[in-house]
Amino acid sequence: MAIIPILGLIIGLLGLLYAVYLARWVLSQDPGNEKMRFISNAIATGARAYLFRQYRTLAALLVVLAVAILAAIDIPRGLPGLTALGFVVGALGSMLAGYLGMYVTTRSASRVAQAAASGGMGKALQVSWRAGAVMGLSLASIALMLISGFYLIFSRITAEWAVPLVALGFGASLVTLFMRVGGGIYTKAADLGADLVGKIEAGIPEDDPRNPGVIADNVGDNVGDVAGMAADVYESYIVTVTASIFLAYILGLPSTYIKGIILFASLALLATFVGINSLRTKGVKNPMGSISTAVYVTIAVSIILFFVGALALGLPFVQAIAMASAVSLGAIIAPLVVKITDYYTSYSYSPVRRIAEQAKISPATVIITGYGVGLMSAVPVLLVIIGVLGISYIIGFYAFSSSITAGFASYGPYLAGIFGTALASVGLLIIAGIIITADSYGPVSDNANGVVEMAGLPDNVREVTDVLDSIGNTTKATTKGYAIASAALAALVLFIALMFEIMRSLSTLLHQPFTSLLGTSISEISIINPNVLIGAFIGVIIVYFFTSRTLGAVGRTAMEIVEEIRRQFKEKPGILEWKETPDYARVVDIATRRALGEFLLPGIVVIVVPLVTAFVLGWQALAGLIMGAVISGVPRALLMANAGGAWDNAKKYIELQGLKKTELHKAVVIGDTVGDPFKDTSGPSLNPLIKVLNTLSVVFAFAIILANTHMGIALSGLLHF
Amino acid sequence: MAIIPILGLIIGLLGLLYAVYLARWVLSQDPGNEKMRFISNAIATGARAYLFRQYRTLAALLVVLAVAILAAIDIPRGLPGLTALGFVVGALGSMLAGYLGMYVTTRSASRVAQAAASGGMGKALQVSWRAGAVMGLSLASIALMLISGFYLIFSRITAEWAVPLVALGFGASLVTLFMRVGGGIYTKAADLGADLVGKIEAGIPEDDPRNPGVIADNVGDNVGDVAGMAADVYESYIVTVTASIFLAYILGLPSTYIKGIILFASLALLATFVGINSLRTKGVKNPMGSISTAVYVTIAVSIILFFVGALALGLPFVQAIAMASAVSLGAIIAPLVVKITDYYTSYSYSPVRRIAEQAKISPATVIITGYGVGLMSAVPVLLVIIGVLGISYIIGFYAFSSSITAGFASYGPYLAGIFGTALASVGLLIIAGIIITADSYGPVSDNANGVVEMAGLPDNVREVTDVLDSIGNTTKATTKGYAIASAALAALVLFIALMFEIMRSLSTLLHQPFTSLLGTSISEISIINPNVLIGAFIGVIIVYFFTSRTLGAVGRTAMEIVEEIRRQFKEKPGILEWKETPDYARVVDIATRRALGEFLLPGIVVIVVPLVTAFVLGWQALAGLIMGAVISGVPRALLMANAGGAWDNAKKYIELQGLKKTELHKAVVIGDTVGDPFKDTSGPSLNPLIKVLNTLSVVFAFAIILANTHMGIALSGLLHF
Repeated sequence: MAIIPILGLIIGLLGLLYAVYLARWVLSQDPGNEKMRFISNAIATGARAYLFRQYRTLAALLVVLAVAILAAIDIPRGLPGLTALGFVVGALGSMLAGYLGMYVTTRSASRVAQAAASGGMGKALQVSWRAGAVMGLSLASIALMLISGFYLIFSRITAEWAVPLVALGFGASLVTLFMRVGGGIYTKAADLGADLVGKIEAGIPEDDPRNPGVIADNVGDNVGDVAGMAADVYESYIVTVTASIFLAYILGLPSTYIKGIILFASLALLATFVGINSLRTKGVKNPMGSISTAVYVTIAVSIILFFVGALALGLPFVQAIAMASAVSLGAIIAPLVVKITDYYTSYSYSPVRRIAEQAKISPATVIITGYGVGLMSAVPVLLVIIGVLGISYIIGFYAFSSSITAGFASYGPYLAGIFGTALASVGLLIIAGIIITADSYGPVSDNANGVVEMAGLPDNVREVTDVLDSIGNTTKATTKGYAIASAALAALVLFIALMFEIMRSLSTLLHQPFTSLLGTSISEISIINPNVLIGAFIGVIIVYFFTSRTLGAVGRTAMEIVEEIRRQFKEKPGILEWKETPDYARVVDIATRRALGEFLLPGIVVIVVPLVTAFVLGWQALAGLIMGAVISGVPRALLMANAGGAWDNAKKYIELQGLKKTELHKAVVIGDTVGDPFKDTSGPSLNPLIKVLNTLSVVFAFAIILANTHMGIALSGLLHF
Repeated sequence: MAIIPILGLIIGLLGLLYAVYLARWVLSQDPGNEKMRFISNAIATGARAYLFRQYRTLAALLVVLAVAILAAIDIPRGLPGLTALGFVVGALGSMLAGYLGMYVTTRSASRVAQAAASGGMGKALQVSWRAGAVMGLSLASIALMLISGFYLIFSRITAEWAVPLVALGFGASLVTLFMRVGGGIYTKAADLGADLVGKIEAGIPEDDPRNPGVIADNVGDNVGDVAGMAADVYESYIVTVTASIFLAYILGLPSTYIKGIILFASLALLATFVGINSLRTKGVKNPMGSISTAVYVTIAVSIILFFVGALALGLPFVQAIAMASAVSLGAIIAPLVVKITDYYTSYSYSPVRRIAEQAKISPATVIITGYGVGLMSAVPVLLVIIGVLGISYIIGFYAFSSSITAGFASYGPYLAGIFGTALASVGLLIIAGIIITADSYGPVSDNANGVVEMAGLPDNVREVTDVLDSIGNTTKATTKGYAIASAALAALVLFIALMFEIMRSLSTLLHQPFTSLLGTSISEISIINPNVLIGAFIGVIIVYFFTSRTLGAVGRTAMEIVEEIRRQFKEKPGILEWKETPDYARVVDIATRRALGEFLLPGIVVIVVPLVTAFVLGWQALAGLIMGAVISGVPRALLMANAGGAWDNAKKYIELQGLKKTELHKAVVIGDTVGDPFKDTSGPSLNPLIKVLNTLSVVFAFAIILANTHMGIALSGLLHF
């Protein structure tokens, strides 16, 4: 019954064809006048140059890791290089996702600007939406094809196909981590540097072509927001789906469950075709309403298809309904998390208004209040995560217990419950196509807005792209909430999967049956084991170190850019009088060099520390480490993303009231600037960070247990009971 | 062999007598001229009024809780009200500690100012140090006497004396929590309000008597920094020592171990007498050096006494040496944590200088960089905590295993290790007398500085009190690091104690022997139990909610104070020209009313949420909750305290370079203002928060297990395995 993975391949291919069709349509639009094309090209060239340099820098690290995986996992386990292969393909997929995102948006910006000029709101919305859809469709299709294809091939080659499948996720999340960090440093340092000297010191507007940092700033939007977010969601998709398949595998569930997961992913992609096509653009006044409707349509169609598909799978009725319900639960919470994020970050509601009100007192109270809003915003999202965890667990507990193999003894219903949670996380991620469409639309509009400004197009054009841009800000902020919530669920599923992979490795290496090890292993990772507690603090240390380094990198890089822009203004006074051309390339070069210089260390720490912890203190400490990182990383990601979004919109709210150039505006601009690296560098990097820790551990679990059991290291034996 | 607790009572009494002697000496000093006495009185009156109103507000809550403890614990367990009594006495002790701290410092300020005027640096240092010593000695003596006395009496009345002893800690930490929150909101809102209008808008210096908020600001220093920190360290002392005694009790260790803990505490107090007396004041140029020496002397003498005392206890040689080593390890890390904090928060080192450098770019990068420094500062402190945990565990593992009763089967060595960690935490806390002496010295100098400014004393006097004040800032910051590290260790010990109290309650209520429950109970709180994970996220939610509320409260209260001060300046223009007297009392009243209005909700959440979680989701979720709160709360407390301290000193660094009234100065002032509620409201409140969660759970453990086992609530049965 290889029909379902083959169906996954076919629907994925259809998605790619649809993306190609839309891409051709977008590229056939008028790219505008020569100036617009020139600007557009400068941005595209800078972004591509950065991305390729980043990939080259990464290549060495990836080769080292691939060899390590080959030596430590594939060879000892007798797998013909499959784990290393999975890792490499996953990594290349992330790179491709980032490149595609960048390619489409940089080419669409001038076309959206031209569409706004010639066809108004409806036309501009259509072009930017379709450009976003190229991204959304490509990512979801590539991810679906990779998973279906690998499952189809690997499961035919070896019974040990599941770890290589997770390696796909490891490769994807590792590259994403670096793209998030490097791109995040680039985009915010360039933004900060350009704004500080341009807007505040020289008093010229944002995106003004006289600013030597303006091209770097726009390049940054593409390498950070677009390529970064594309890779992030692609990575979450791969990790979640492979983790759930892995869990089903390790629990010995019938293969129908695994095929069900692939089927649901295929059906969600079909529903995405419908959703993308359903966008109303003609005579639209409120584009946000149209976009929300398209998202809801996708979710509704998906849910119907989930139930139909589940019943067609051939599972007993109760299991089929339970499977569809758990997956639907995940799909439904997406809009819920989006609403919560919207409440805390949009100026239509009281939290952002309270921040804006504090501008009457001082920038300091703007910061304090915004930070408080960020903290509070994590509360309802965490409650949603807890709720999904509880409900999906209960669904699984009642429905799937009978399908768990007898080997798990009394733990059967518990494991069935965890599989319920895995299905919910799948439901949240497989609708990623439409979410990314709505998200990519944001940076496309942002860039279009930049082109309008730099090319000096008339005010009425600017008004159209301004509306699109501000909606883009909202979809960007809410997608972050979605990505974090999905990362949290994915991490929980992966975490359980990891524990069972460890027990399985123990069972193999100690030549003891799985069942007899289960009880001991579970109590070994009790939270009163000092080793687990030490591990948990190490997990927190990783999160804190990582966040501190990335924040500091933005400050350091921005400082160099500020000095360069100040130097250019000083040495070429003609720039501000439009008489001299600024040296854009130099700022692009500084941002590129510094971002790449800063992005390796935190990433390497994330790889080395867990492995050293596991080898020296044992797998129990590693379990604690991952839990500590999830417990501290997820809320911190929410705090940083939402505080940043709230400060951004508090500024917009003050601007809307016509209070630009007042003390109040200065106060909220400071808040916005603080929020920039929070929401676009450190915060979003925590997503792939958590998943790298998890997938890395699953991939290396066998080697860790080998070391733990054979080397009998003093500490790892002493600190646990 | 009641001799050791009686010795504890005697040495405690000696400590109190020494404190009375020093207090009389301080009060016999010249309180200065009439204006100085007037200012001093106004501050003392405002502080006392606030403290009493706060205590009255708390009274109702304490009565309700005492009755709840009586009904849910004492009556079902047949204890004659001992748990409720312990709770009430612990709470009253906290109130007394706060009051004493406030009493001494408010009365010393004008005397230190006068000493600086008449006798210069040496004399001023002597007066302020002895004022601080009154506090340090009183707190340590009261805590030691309470613990010794309660142990002596309770252990004669009932075999179930240990939970009532922990109730002492619960009372202490609960009152401290409210004092930290209320006082923290008061002090920072008043500070912020007074500074924003006074320094920034009206352009008058800090502590200028024309500012209507100036008395409220000084009152705030006393109710927040002094009363709050006094209660905090008193509470940590009680909780740590009682938790360690509780652990020894529940592990069935011979009573010699328990008496050893009390003996060590008594000896540390003796060493503190020596340390306090060792301060060199004559002709001192660098008071910081003198203070550090006094602290080192105390620690060195303590360690010698620990080894002598341990050998005199009658334990086998190895155990005696191990006990003294574990306790000494705790005492030694105090200066280590102090050094780390100093590195990240003093302007002599690169982190603070990097923050100051960012002032060249913008206030926003000052905030970003300072936040990054705060994050990074948590890393080495957490490493120290991990190190102590590991080393003390290993000491205990090897030395005490043979003393653990056979009932714990193979878990014996593990529990012996945990007891080693408990001893280390005791070592860290029992030297609190000297730490508090050095700490209280800070606010005394700060207030003296205020008196000098407001009374218009000459510049050379101001120079002396300025030096003392800036050293006071350092000791204040480093004491926070000490308090957090000790809270982390205390929480870990309490956490293990709680788990065993739960198992003991289970054993009583299920009529099953302890041993047979041990394995199951330990695996029930495995980190892969979804119930534990849900609990952990609830723990994080509490920390985030609490921090957000307290930060928000400062903003809201400051806003009202700003409006009041602006109103006074507007309605009475004579104030700024020295022609009219500002209405100080009104600002004091606003700060009092608002702080008390804001302080109940977060505190009640901390009590209600864990109990509801435990009753609905079971004790496993409660275990997760506490771990989640510790894992996220401890690093957050470090982040907030140290980022705040670093911003503060970045401002001082800029000022030292003579850059006041520049754009650079404005930028660092914004950083300092953001840091204020970080370091003095939200950050320090997290210490008692963590301990309230822990002690509350220990006290109510029996009732929770009763509900869990008899009510068989659906979720609590379903979600664990």
